[in-house]
Amino acid sequence: MEFDLIAKYFTRTTPDAVLGVGDDCALLAPTPGMQLAVSSDMLLEGRHFSPQDSPAGIGHKSLAVNLSDLAAMGATPRWATLSIALPEVNDAWLTAFARGFFRMADLHGIELVGGDTTRGALTLSITVMGEVPPGQALRRDGAQAGDDIWVSGVLGSAAMALAYRQGRLFMEQIDAAKVLPALYLPMPRVELGIALRGIAHSAIDISDGLLGDLGHILERSQVGATLEFAALPTHPVVQGYLHEAVARDCILAGGDDYELCFTAPASQRDAVLAAAASVDTAVTRVGCITAESGLTVMDADGQPMSIEHTGYNHFAAES
Amino acid sequence: MEFDLIAKYFTRTTPDAVLGVGDDCALLAPTPGMQLAVSSDMLLEGRHFSPQDSPAGIGHKSLAVNLSDLAAMGATPRWATLSIALPEVNDAWLTAFARGFFRMADLHGIELVGGDTTRGALTLSITVMGEVPPGQALRRDGAQAGDDIWVSGVLGSAAMALAYRQGRLFMEQIDAAKVLPALYLPMPRVELGIALRGIAHSAIDISDGLLGDLGHILERSQVGATLEFAALPTHPVVQGYLHEAVARDCILAGGDDYELCFTAPASQRDAVLAAAASVDTAVTRVGCITAESGLTVMDADGQPMSIEHTGYNHFAAES
Repeated sequence: MEFDLIAKYFTRTTPDAVLGVGDDCALLAPTPGMQLAVSSDMLLEGRHFSPQDSPAGIGHKSLAVNLSDLAAMGATPRWATLSIALPEVNDAWLTAFARGFFRMADLHGIELVGGDTTRGALTLSITVMGEVPPGQALRRDGAQAGDDIWVSGVLGSAAMALAYRQGRLFMEQIDAAKVLPALYLPMPRVELGIALRGIAHSAIDISDGLLGDLGHILERSQVGATLEFAALPTHPVVQGYLHEAVARDCILAGGDDYELCFTAPASQRDAVLAAAASVDTAVTRVGCITAESGLTVMDADGQPMSIEHTGYNHFAAES
Repeated sequence: MEFDLIAKYFTRTTPDAVLGVGDDCALLAPTPGMQLAVSSDMLLEGRHFSPQDSPAGIGHKSLAVNLSDLAAMGATPRWATLSIALPEVNDAWLTAFARGFFRMADLHGIELVGGDTTRGALTLSITVMGEVPPGQALRRDGAQAGDDIWVSGVLGSAAMALAYRQGRLFMEQIDAAKVLPALYLPMPRVELGIALRGIAHSAIDISDGLLGDLGHILERSQVGATLEFAALPTHPVVQGYLHEAVARDCILAGGDDYELCFTAPASQRDAVLAAAASVDTAVTRVGCITAESGLTVMDADGQPMSIEHTGYNHFAAES
């Protein structure tokens, strides 16, 4: 009975599916001629979110981080499955979680078509499916020497908010209030990813910090990069904390930005700006791809900065 | 570094994908004109398997139970994603788990194209994707009054093995050894599901016990059913324990069979038998679908049996 109760929170009509929740499988009709982009993420309480977090926010973010992977491919969101382990059936928690989850789903036209529920420590596992025309996906392996490096939105806000929450960074409360939404309510750059089809050479979403994620592009594309620290876009509030090493780390290597980092030929600068403007998203040119391997960050004086942290490693973090 | 290490265990060439593990999303090219069948399951240590279980067996079973959902739809397995939370990077465990997982994957031609790894209590979350021609999926809602009810293989072996392991049922060791494989190494009926396309009216896989799962067909199809207890196929070993109430419960309502329960018109009996023979799978006719709602099990004397347990409820189980 309790088990049936859970289905209630997540069963809605699914006009975009042949058959939604309630059978052994969902049945979907992919758009003829499109490729399917698929990504899975698992989020654990105590690691990816805390027991104190708002359940609506957890619903929002759990789907947002998956949509961010579709955004990084330039894929149009279509369907999702949600598997959830819960210590108990908590009506208030599930209602709020589902509200946050479906608000994000509706924003991007993605339908929940299946999943699983079981009893256990709070764990969320989501698989998203999107569609992209053949040959137009934004991959990590397409960066070319001479490409501009771009990022969307601003960097470091979520990591600053987390550092503040964890007591690693002192911030004025009024300042903290301005970066906390980046941590709890990230907005995936789905429309930007789609707009960049055919323009960008490569893309990734910044989930583990700019340096680490750009590093994945460099590795897969077998190129290097130079970044201008002063060019990196940040929230105005963040500027006031740049004297703190932790703030600089947040911008370069903080997690949870969920912005896009992408590369495009210099000849496409106007096209990039027009694509970004068409979806009301700020983009900033922050460096360039080099033929030589290695990742260098130049400070305002044109000197290479020494970099300690390059990204977040889930397993190394505690060792 | 440790994190990269994990990718090593699960990264293989994926000739059946446009792009496999290593980007924000996998890229897949669905077969033109086919529908996509998608299912997700989450398995937790302590609930779905025990810390003492063989990691190769866990790898086998975790994918097998997902493939069983594709089987129940009549879908041809294509792709899977695997998200895994682990308390630590244990080389021996991961090597054995991957061996069991990929052996099952290779048996059914399914490719692992993506997933996620994180640190936490051992949790496996798998999403499988398969393909089925439009209109030929075996759904739960297609049963019609007068249909025969069929099951594949034998019922109750896995539940008997679990009851033995948990000390709820005494079995001779030599007998137990014959049913234990059903619990640890279930074989999903993928080929049978495909062979039943266009023949069966409805199907489900028996994961939570025959009565509960057949109940889902009855509910979705708005029909009833009569089963003949004496007709239910069991392992020869199980026959020796039928005087035990727990053994009868295992056959009717034990979990983990991963056999198919399906319905087909009486006019298709020969077609069902031929389809099953073509994939070397035993099937047994065990009852019929009735227009009146309700599920009745008749004993050998033609009297209705009183049924206590109708299925497994993950949340009610402990209450």
